[in-house]
Amino acid sequence: MRERMRDFLAHRHFQRFIVAVILTNAAVLGLETFPRVVERHGDLLTLIDHVALYIFVVELLAKVYAERSAFVRDPWNIFDAVIVAIALVPATGGLSVLRSLRILRALRLLSVVPSLRRVVSALLRALPGMSSIVVLLSLVLYVAAVMATKLYGQAAPARFGSLPTSLFTLYQTMTGDDWGNIAREVMDRHPTAWIFFTIFILVCTFVVLNLFLAVVVSAMDEENSKERAAAREDTSDHNTQRILDELAELRKELAELRAQRALD
Amino acid sequence: MRERMRDFLAHRHFQRFIVAVILTNAAVLGLETFPRVVERHGDLLTLIDHVALYIFVVELLAKVYAERSAFVRDPWNIFDAVIVAIALVPATGGLSVLRSLRILRALRLLSVVPSLRRVVSALLRALPGMSSIVVLLSLVLYVAAVMATKLYGQAAPARFGSLPTSLFTLYQTMTGDDWGNIAREVMDRHPTAWIFFTIFILVCTFVVLNLFLAVVVSAMDEENSKERAAAREDTSDHNTQRILDELAELRKELAELRAQRALD
Amino acid sequence: MRERMRDFLAHRHFQRFIVAVILTNAAVLGLETFPRVVERHGDLLTLIDHVALYIFVVELLAKVYAERSAFVRDPWNIFDAVIVAIALVPATGGLSVLRSLRILRALRLLSVVPSLRRVVSALLRALPGMSSIVVLLSLVLYVAAVMATKLYGQAAPARFGSLPTSLFTLYQTMTGDDWGNIAREVMDRHPTAWIFFTIFILVCTFVVLNLFLAVVVSAMDEENSKERAAAREDTSDHNTQRILDELAELRKELAELRAQRALD
Amino acid sequence: MRERMRDFLAHRHFQRFIVAVILTNAAVLGLETFPRVVERHGDLLTLIDHVALYIFVVELLAKVYAERSAFVRDPWNIFDAVIVAIALVPATGGLSVLRSLRILRALRLLSVVPSLRRVVSALLRALPGMSSIVVLLSLVLYVAAVMATKLYGQAAPARFGSLPTSLFTLYQTMTGDDWGNIAREVMDRHPTAWIFFTIFILVCTFVVLNLFLAVVVSAMDEENSKERAAAREDTSDHNTQRILDELAELRKELAELRAQRALD
Repeated sequence: MRERMRDFLAHRHFQRFIVAVILTNAAVLGLETFPRVVERHGDLLTLIDHVALYIFVVELLAKVYAERSAFVRDPWNIFDAVIVAIALVPATGGLSVLRSLRILRALRLLSVVPSLRRVVSALLRALPGMSSIVVLLSLVLYVAAVMATKLYGQAAPARFGSLPTSLFTLYQTMTGDDWGNIAREVMDRHPTAWIFFTIFILVCTFVVLNLFLAVVVSAMDEENSKERAAAREDTSDHNTQRILDELAELRKELAELRAQRALD
Repeated sequence: MRERMRDFLAHRHFQRFIVAVILTNAAVLGLETFPRVVERHGDLLTLIDHVALYIFVVELLAKVYAERSAFVRDPWNIFDAVIVAIALVPATGGLSVLRSLRILRALRLLSVVPSLRRVVSALLRALPGMSSIVVLLSLVLYVAAVMATKLYGQAAPARFGSLPTSLFTLYQTMTGDDWGNIAREVMDRHPTAWIFFTIFILVCTFVVLNLFLAVVVSAMDEENSKERAAAREDTSDHNTQRILDELAELRKELAELRAQRALD
Repeated sequence: MRERMRDFLAHRHFQRFIVAVILTNAAVLGLETFPRVVERHGDLLTLIDHVALYIFVVELLAKVYAERSAFVRDPWNIFDAVIVAIALVPATGGLSVLRSLRILRALRLLSVVPSLRRVVSALLRALPGMSSIVVLLSLVLYVAAVMATKLYGQAAPARFGSLPTSLFTLYQTMTGDDWGNIAREVMDRHPTAWIFFTIFILVCTFVVLNLFLAVVVSAMDEENSKERAAAREDTSDHNTQRILDELAELRKELAELRAQRALD
Repeated sequence: MRERMRDFLAHRHFQRFIVAVILTNAAVLGLETFPRVVERHGDLLTLIDHVALYIFVVELLAKVYAERSAFVRDPWNIFDAVIVAIALVPATGGLSVLRSLRILRALRLLSVVPSLRRVVSALLRALPGMSSIVVLLSLVLYVAAVMATKLYGQAAPARFGSLPTSLFTLYQTMTGDDWGNIAREVMDRHPTAWIFFTIFILVCTFVVLNLFLAVVVSAMDEENSKERAAAREDTSDHNTQRILDELAELRKELAELRAQRALD
């Protein structure tokens, strides 16, 4: 019984059906953003939305029943569960933020479509490799933000008025967006501010560059090693074989030589 | 007869002639954007434009005649056909949009100049490798757009008033252009909006970074494998040869040894 | 006695304690940027700050005592010393700039946490590789700034009024931030300015691209060589071993052959 | 005599002297941008500038005398000659543009300092590899500019009024600077303009990405092949040697075996 359920859930057709439900649901939630559409077909959209949600819930429960304790071991299941849970809350409550989170259900595609699943897994595997550089970057950001707040808080309150504001402004500066005007704004009062901004941007660019590098290198390294190993094996083995054949020949001849001696 | 036609079309001189026509045509269409030039030599430009178009049509028909069914198999031919077709429409009709599309004829260079042809082919080959990450990116964009429309639609109608607007704004944010001001605009009403934007930018940057990686790695991998295989073969084979020669020597000596025995 | 001190300083628990102090201190300095918090707990924050500082001073002195002349040989020690020194100045004096530099103490994390220490060392190792390109970039920047000041100084004083201003503006242009508007501002008076900006951006982009390349290549190269050497050794040696075993067999047989002769 | 001259020009000290002159000259031309400095020491600066220029001319003539026809074969000499020539013109004439070009003399550092010379050569070597992609990019830019001028010329004359303006605007868009506002400006009149901009940016980003790739791959490929070849040789040869030694042993034994036979 449990096996059958498992097979059914894993079945190609069922998977396709779920994908279809997810896409429809995503489309519906998209349509809900058009007031005119809501006026006319509001009820229909809500209906479809609820149906989709129920399907997800049922699927999830079925999975729990089928896989039992194995269910929680697969992070993708947790992912699905959380998303559906989020979706359930606004279905009962009515906070706009929570309601808007229902669209996160569309992300279930990541767990259902194998190719997307692979991509996301790959992305996540890349994370640990960059963790310490991310820590470094956050540290730089925090230190710079505290300094900026103390130094330029009065000069440009809209930019560096408080620590959170500074963090946001410097994060924006880090992405290189509009930093020139931000700097000029400050430099009107603190002509030396260019030192702060230039150093900050140089450091960030450099660290980000190296963060990027870390990923490239590790990614390529993996790739190369795989591929190289493969490639090497065959030619190298091929050559070795040629030599071993030759040696085998030699031994045969020696054997014959001894055989002759024996005959004498 | 058909062979002759094919040779003629493939002939170096004819190819050069077509390139010349394309360039002239592109130049003419460029000149047409200068009102003063049009005033004076408008008729001449139109004439040249039509002549060029006719040449393309004739060339195309000749190709169809020469290659017959093989014609449709080469995507580049379809490409040329479509471009000329587009060009033909405004020649009859008169829509400004269609008229402006005539310049697309300049893109015929891509199909005529071998080096450009190679580059474009290379670019297209790179596409499948990134398909699933592109899907992922679109999904993220769509989900974020729906959320933003619902959350910030009232707060910043010019940015997130409707789903299309949000998609555009977030696409812009993704390219890191002016996102700081967009975010601030929203944060005036929703102080917590910085969470949304920070997460969105982090995710996008990270995915794009990995999209980029996917391409680098695959590209390099190809390169390396080619080059490495080549490089390895020769040295590795060279060494193997030295060993095999040595073994050959050994066998000769053994043979002599046996010959001596035979003589006794 | 000195050994004990050294062991104590290097001890896991003590290291953790220092990290804790650094984090607390960083948090405190962050809280100091919130006026309301300062009003209420100002004295407490200052107290913690001073305690932290004293701990750092004591730790540093202990290190000097323990490592003696070896102390100055480790650049990380100099780093710590300088940071603490900076922190000491404002503790006595009261310049806002110096006071704001106290947060630099948070950077001590870089020298205390091993993983961060490694990352930073890696970043620094990458520097020499890019030195000459950085020189090149600075040269381009300087030359462009002098030209811009002379050419566009009158046209756009806010952007190119003086050499420093030009340097800042061009640095901003180099990061691609808002350069379009800067260029337009100038082009109102000097319609040919687009030549200057286009060339400048092309050159910078190209040089930066290659700077980036220099780093990628060197980084990867290192990686590859390490990994490849490792990978090659084992398979290549594995094959060699197979051949050598075969040869050993051959020699044994030859030996036997001679033994037989001896017996006759 | 000519040899002596050549040695003198190539001598370490002389090279250093020229570098010093270049730097001084660059500094002087920088100082000339400060009105106050010019007021006080204007004549001195002009004097130094002229002296430097004369030194360059003399050095150049000496080179011509020393290397004769070989002089023109080294592109770096042409580079120096052109720069000095440019510098000479304003020395006689008085056009502000030409005068401002005198600072280009600072670029002579590129030809004098070996490390910079190498970097620049490397950059130039990278150019041919990207030529066809650059052509492709220019083609895309031109086609897009013609279309934009025809489609959006009336709607946003400041951005797409004429072909040159469009080229500039799209070049700016390509660098991702402020394109959102440009697009919005157009979209007020042409709501469908987002299609044009989105496609344009996607295509450009993609092509640039691949341009970048082309360079990375080629650069790395070179690197790898060099390094790999080296690395492979030694281990692979090392193993081969072990086998060959073994074989030599075998032959010695066989020889002995035959010697014994001969003795019987």
